[in-house]
Amino acid sequence: MTPHPINITPKQLYFAHKQNYVLPTKQHCLRVKKVINMNGPLVIYIKGKDEETRDNTDVDLEFRQESNFFYLTGVDEPGYQVVFDLESERVYLITPSVPENDVFWKGPSHDTAELMELYNVDEIVQQEDLPRLFHTLAPKSTLVLDDQQAKHLKSIMPLLNVDTQLLTPAIHESRLIKFSWEIETIRQVMYASSQSHIALMQQFKSGMTEAHLAALFRWTCASHQIYSQAYLPIVASGPRAATLHYSRNNQKIPTEPHSLVLVDAGGEKSCYGSDITRTFPARGFFSEEAKTIYNIVLRMQKVSLDIYFASCIFIVEANTYIVETVLSNLMPGVFWADMQTLAMEVLCDELIRIGILIGDQEELIQRGVPSAFYYHGLGHSLGLDVHDVGGKDRCPADQEDSDNPTATEFLADRPLEENMVLTVEPGLYFNDAMLNIWTQFPGYQHYFDLGVVDKYRGVGGVRIEDTVVITKDGYENLTFAPKEIHEIEELMNVK
Amino acid sequence: MTPHPINITPKQLYFAHKQNYVLPTKQHCLRVKKVINMNGPLVIYIKGKDEETRDNTDVDLEFRQESNFFYLTGVDEPGYQVVFDLESERVYLITPSVPENDVFWKGPSHDTAELMELYNVDEIVQQEDLPRLFHTLAPKSTLVLDDQQAKHLKSIMPLLNVDTQLLTPAIHESRLIKFSWEIETIRQVMYASSQSHIALMQQFKSGMTEAHLAALFRWTCASHQIYSQAYLPIVASGPRAATLHYSRNNQKIPTEPHSLVLVDAGGEKSCYGSDITRTFPARGFFSEEAKTIYNIVLRMQKVSLDIYFASCIFIVEANTYIVETVLSNLMPGVFWADMQTLAMEVLCDELIRIGILIGDQEELIQRGVPSAFYYHGLGHSLGLDVHDVGGKDRCPADQEDSDNPTATEFLADRPLEENMVLTVEPGLYFNDAMLNIWTQFPGYQHYFDLGVVDKYRGVGGVRIEDTVVITKDGYENLTFAPKEIHEIEELMNVK
Repeated sequence: MTPHPINITPKQLYFAHKQNYVLPTKQHCLRVKKVINMNGPLVIYIKGKDEETRDNTDVDLEFRQESNFFYLTGVDEPGYQVVFDLESERVYLITPSVPENDVFWKGPSHDTAELMELYNVDEIVQQEDLPRLFHTLAPKSTLVLDDQQAKHLKSIMPLLNVDTQLLTPAIHESRLIKFSWEIETIRQVMYASSQSHIALMQQFKSGMTEAHLAALFRWTCASHQIYSQAYLPIVASGPRAATLHYSRNNQKIPTEPHSLVLVDAGGEKSCYGSDITRTFPARGFFSEEAKTIYNIVLRMQKVSLDIYFASCIFIVEANTYIVETVLSNLMPGVFWADMQTLAMEVLCDELIRIGILIGDQEELIQRGVPSAFYYHGLGHSLGLDVHDVGGKDRCPADQEDSDNPTATEFLADRPLEENMVLTVEPGLYFNDAMLNIWTQFPGYQHYFDLGVVDKYRGVGGVRIEDTVVITKDGYENLTFAPKEIHEIEELMNVK
Repeated sequence: MTPHPINITPKQLYFAHKQNYVLPTKQHCLRVKKVINMNGPLVIYIKGKDEETRDNTDVDLEFRQESNFFYLTGVDEPGYQVVFDLESERVYLITPSVPENDVFWKGPSHDTAELMELYNVDEIVQQEDLPRLFHTLAPKSTLVLDDQQAKHLKSIMPLLNVDTQLLTPAIHESRLIKFSWEIETIRQVMYASSQSHIALMQQFKSGMTEAHLAALFRWTCASHQIYSQAYLPIVASGPRAATLHYSRNNQKIPTEPHSLVLVDAGGEKSCYGSDITRTFPARGFFSEEAKTIYNIVLRMQKVSLDIYFASCIFIVEANTYIVETVLSNLMPGVFWADMQTLAMEVLCDELIRIGILIGDQEELIQRGVPSAFYYHGLGHSLGLDVHDVGGKDRCPADQEDSDNPTATEFLADRPLEENMVLTVEPGLYFNDAMLNIWTQFPGYQHYFDLGVVDKYRGVGGVRIEDTVVITKDGYENLTFAPKEIHEIEELMNVK
């Protein structure tokens, strides 16, 4: 069995929050070196992000470090660069040259001693000493992320031999398998995000708007010391629940009997994200139709993980409900593609059972019919990016199509491994545009019972998403927000 | 006397919030035409902003329209373009070509009828019909904002005659003087921001962090239906209050006797901003030293506006304190430079009075000594940008240095006019870096009594900022958050 996440009490989490914990990013550099697996005087160079202002104004934009740079340095401040010498395994952090007046406007810059204390690097180098550093290291080749970074480096060091092919897939491969401190950071932010989902269910009142719920989500995260979001919160009510990345959040929540509110949101801490979707009834109780659809998705989630419902622990602690459904059999070696298939089979069986689809499961799946109601992947890797990188290629030699590999690609192509963090997020949607296409397509009409489709159309859409980490012999669910119908209704109707 | 802002009750404000009010942006186009004041077949073209993702990921960034485009169209959605034909005075809104699958991920696009209802434009044109539109209009010249926009337009219409000089100063000049609906929008967001400042004073507790207060500010704005910020909130406590644009907000608030919390923050609604600074004591009561410094800044604010304290109305309404100090004599015709001088004189007199500065007022000012404690402008224009544009040049012919004119430039150079919206924000800071420079500069040491400086150093910094609109015969203060010491202490110590 997997260790139970309830072992981490809120108190311990807060303690971890408060520690001045230095992320051991040197380990990240060393693993990237290992993945690259090449000898000789090689150097990695990345320019981190600069401060940005909006358009042609002086309005500062919120700063968020580029993920690969953060991975190697832990620096979430603008203007830095990093050099990692693979031979000596030394990490050099290059500090920005700050205009003199900045001290009055932005505050004092860190001095060398502070930087050495804040970050897991070996040496601090001033911007003007960067050429000298390169001359000393005299690399055979300098590995950079892409052409833009190459161009920047060439503008400082025109004669350098620069490689744009090796670094990106190596960092991506490294980032895919998480270190324990990365998992711990994600665990903390998952805890806060779970609490925020719970808060939305508890505090929801008729008449609220999507925008208000999105703001309430951010505020609850903040009250758990999480001040950023991993992505724009999606608060999609009524028919909008069938729009996958709806983030306008600008409508009033409807009060029709079947109406649901789909909330897909997760905070971010130290650049590490979280990702949770919960769907709850706008009237506090699920209608029978909504229940039917909701339970199909819940079954897809459980079964797609080759799951049996092993036990359910329900702890009530200081006004906070922490619910963890202990599932099993998601484990290293499993292929994600098989899970996708399984989820689709469950969906198809269920849609036949309730009368929406007509015909034989095998034929319906072979012709792709269930995709009329479920048109996205079962999940993705999560880490410094919410749709996190995953190296499609195990060795850096094979480079084709490895730029920006999507999580789905990697998940489909390779077995799961210990310390991957991924989401499991089946859905079932009644999207008018999608249904029009499918139900009117020649040769497909007879698969649908439109009368039954209409009966459920008002449900809009359901998605249930947890984030889990693959363990040695199974997985651990990092999501504490309840997802059983009775739990949700209980949360929404206390007092 | 100016109309009293209390006339706008919260209830009326909410009513205005709820109306599906279409901003009459056609009037903005017509005024820009008037400023350009040229005959012949001229056309204005702007490409609005596209959606952006973070770095090389698929993480959507919060969308915020470019201010000039918003000014002419009221469109705060990505992918649009605008063409304004100065001859026929027709406004054409060009819709983006949306990929087919976007409907499932982002939701349906507006159709023509919806767009005509949402925006004050004359015609909706599909992206692919843009070349045809230009062929029909056959402009002698097409006015664009800058070289980048020119390049984009040339990529569609290579033969077009494009001008990059006329448009920007004309829009800036137009934006400087606000229409009534712009003032009304700013009034609404100023109301919410004022309430948020009040909430911070009321809910402040020892042990809170700067980050928590910043989040509380955003949340209170949201609970007043303001979901964006005009700029990154500044919550600067203790010595950080002397850092003007401190927005790291990552420290615990100190509890030393003199410690203050400086909060410079304002929400944004329909792209129109607000701007307020309040400074309150971290212990709930000002120390004597803090009181002394605070009152100097308050005096600078009042006197710099050539102000006498006319009356003070204090309305307690459902847990909400609305305070308006009715001041007078800020009016059209006044030169901002004179106010800056006045503020500096008050500051100098007061610093001599309390013993920080030694010497003759005239000499101290002539040598710039008070700038050791106050090193920014008295205020700036506010509108679609927080540091709003102000055309330095009245006629478009004189173009030099008119790119990005700062508000300070325009305010110094021209008399105030009715319907300008501007901030009045004197400050007094004990910034160690700044004081080291001034007090150790050869020939300047004798102006400072370092013992007295040290007595006040722990106060850190004070800024008091209101946003006002110039009226026909004076001004109206749009800021409701209290700023008198007794009011602040009362707010912080109720119950």
